[in-house]
Parts: sequence; structure tokens; C-alpha cells
Amino acid sequence: MLKTVTFQEIAEMDDLFRRTFVNSLTGFKSVCLIGTHNLQKQTNLAVFSQVFHIGANPPLIGILVRPDKSPRHTLQNIEATQEFTINHIREEFYKQAHQTSARYPRENSEFDTCELTPFYSSLLNAPYVREANIKMGLTLAQRVDIAINGTILLIGQVVEVMFPEECLWHDGYLDIEQAGSLTSSSLDGYHTTQRLARLKYAKTDLPPQEIIRSI
Amino acid sequence: MLKTVTFQEIAEMDDLFRRTFVNSLTGFKSVCLIGTHNLQKQTNLAVFSQVFHIGANPPLIGILVRPDKSPRHTLQNIEATQEFTINHIREEFYKQAHQTSARYPRENSEFDTCELTPFYSSLLNAPYVREANIKMGLTLAQRVDIAINGTILLIGQVVEVMFPEECLWHDGYLDIEQAGSLTSSSLDGYHTTQRLARLKYAKTDLPPQEIIRSI
Repeated sequence: MLKTVTFQEIAEMDDLFRRTFVNSLTGFKSVCLIGTHNLQKQTNLAVFSQVFHIGANPPLIGILVRPDKSPRHTLQNIEATQEFTINHIREEFYKQAHQTSARYPRENSEFDTCELTPFYSSLLNAPYVREANIKMGLTLAQRVDIAINGTILLIGQVVEVMFPEECLWHDGYLDIEQAGSLTSSSLDGYHTTQRLARLKYAKTDLPPQEIIRSI
Repeated sequence: MLKTVTFQEIAEMDDLFRRTFVNSLTGFKSVCLIGTHNLQKQTNLAVFSQVFHIGANPPLIGILVRPDKSPRHTLQNIEATQEFTINHIREEFYKQAHQTSARYPRENSEFDTCELTPFYSSLLNAPYVREANIKMGLTLAQRVDIAINGTILLIGQVVEVMFPEECLWHDGYLDIEQAGSLTSSSLDGYHTTQRLARLKYAKTDLPPQEIIRSI
């Protein structure tokens, strides 16, 4: 039975109900841990589902932050140090990843409270999550203030990417499913995936065709 | 074997390889058909994986557009008519959905060339996709130009949402997996999902707990 809900009915929903409902509408999302540190080298880890591709050349990734919400330590740290890491979440530690959203006091690193392991590379100081199979380091490239509701889009330039070598296809496709990356729904749903196919660049005179891995 | 790729190595990649690689990095994405029309009432349909939650109150959804890329008809139409629809893609028609990315001439509607069925509501003139289980209509609320690479974030306000009634949980969670919505990877990967769990709002003094559907 198809149900229709209008703008007016959304406006009249209970706050938490609306937040859960509207967050469902955009479909499946990325779900990552953002690793940061402050100028005193205290580390912070926050689960984010608002991670977006902005551009490939140069490689740019955006995260959307609410200044008044819990991951504000993330915003403060990125603005102070100009860097952060993005770490894909796997089934093996998704409950620990979710637990980073609890409001721990600033002096407690979520690495400790949620039992995840920091990992450092030589190219930046922000902490990676050792348990993540796919992880990348970024430097802050641009802050975009979204006037309509006060959210902030932080755009980072990719400095380095770490991934299991066997997950890289012949054409640049990084097989995030093979690497165990999860997807999320609304505010709190975690899902594994099963690929149907990759489809070739569409042509007007050809039916859809599948891309097969050649190496 | 963990492989590291640096900014410099990404810069030296072949264009298409880099595009496929960098588009993999942000993890799983939404995948939707954006329905628009022009002032002559010609309809257009384009597959998009850049669909983002911007805010819940008011309900705002953003789509990221490249002015120089194929879905430019979508940009032109939204700017002309100030409205668009977002339609979740299901396994039953994902190949047709992908096919909308072929460069059909403007006079050919992708509804015809890709064999999808337009559907209209009384609240706006933009076309919906009848085959989609979850669909929503939006009016343009704000255009944000991303200076760093010339992309454009179009933010729409949700006017109405249509979905299968049985997919709405007691707390506002719309079960997009039950509705058959797919997720995507990189530029061309389509995946079904399998939910591990929904996890309750995290508390510092409690371990992660699962949310069970009560109605």
C-alpha cells in the first residue's frame, strides 16, 4: 500500500521521529570513522554517514558537520590541525564504531573507550583506525557554509589511501565490498552488501553490459 | 597485503582510472533517478549517486552536479522549473536506470528510451518513476557553488514522500532495504543489502544495543 506524506505532515512529526524518517530518504550511505587530533595531540574518533565524493582530480572528499551536534570535536580538531582521516567500517567492529557517538568527555579518546587501535603514517599526524581495511588521510582544502540550515561542508584533499592490494581491479575500481566496507541507513542501520554487477559506461545504441574483472 | 597510494600517484593515474578509483573512496552511496522536466514539459531522467541528507527540519536533500557533465539537462531543468523528483532504484530496473546515463539527445526522454514509466502527483509537475518504491518530490531551496572545483550543490526541500506503508517502523525509520532500494559503489557498481542491525543511540555507560521493530 503506497503511503504519501506531505511537507506539512513531516513538519508536524515528533522531532526524533522526523530525524529518523528524513535521514532515511536519501537512500544508503557511506559509514566511516573520522579520526582527528587536537593541538595537544589528544585523539578523537567519530562515526559519520555524511561522507561525499566532491571530485576526482584533484581528489576531494566532503564531510557534512553540524556545529551544534555531538561530533563538534571533529570540527574543532579539523579546523585547528587542518587534517583528518576517513576509515571504512567493517562488520568486525561496527558496534564499537557506533559507540563512538556516545558523548564521551573530551579527555577520553574514543580509541580507548571504544577499544579501537590508533595507527599513524608518516604523511600526517591525524590517527587512523588500524582495524579499518580502507583508510585515507586528508588535509582541509575548503570550508563551505550552507546558509540554509547552518551546516558546514568540510572538503579535504586526499593525501594518501591505504587498502588491501587484492581489492583493486584492473580499471581503478576499488572493491569496497570485498574489503568488507558496510553501508548505513538513516541514523543507525548497518548493512553488508552483495554486488549485482558493475555496468559499462552506457551507450545509446547498446543495451547495458556488465564489467568483468580482468586482473 | 596493504597497499598505499599517495596524492602524487593519484595525480599520475590515467583520467578514467583515477575517476573510478577516487569515486570508490567515499564508500557506498545512494543511487537514485532524478526526474525533471523543462518549460516545454519535456521530461528527463538521470541516474545520480550524489544524493545527500542536508537537514531534517526543514527536510532538505542535496544533489551534487557537475556543470560540464552529462546530467546537465538535470541542472538546466531544475533551475528553470525549480523542482525535481528523487526515485530510489530497485534490482528490478537497475539496468534501465543505468542506461539513462547514455547521452540521449534532449528531444528523447529517458522514460521512453530506457522503458520506465512516468508518474505524476498533484503537488508538482516534475515526473516520478512509477517503478520506484520510494520517491519524493522537492522544490529548489538553495544553490551552493563549490568554488574549489566548480561543482554545484543543489538543495531541495521535500514537498512529499511516497513509500510502501509496511516499510515504516514505529520510530520513523523507513526500511529502504525492505523496499528494495539498492546502494552503489564507485561509478557503476550496484548492490543489494543485508541489514546487520539498527543500534540504539549510544550511551557512555551502556554497550551497543539493537533496535527491534515494535510495529
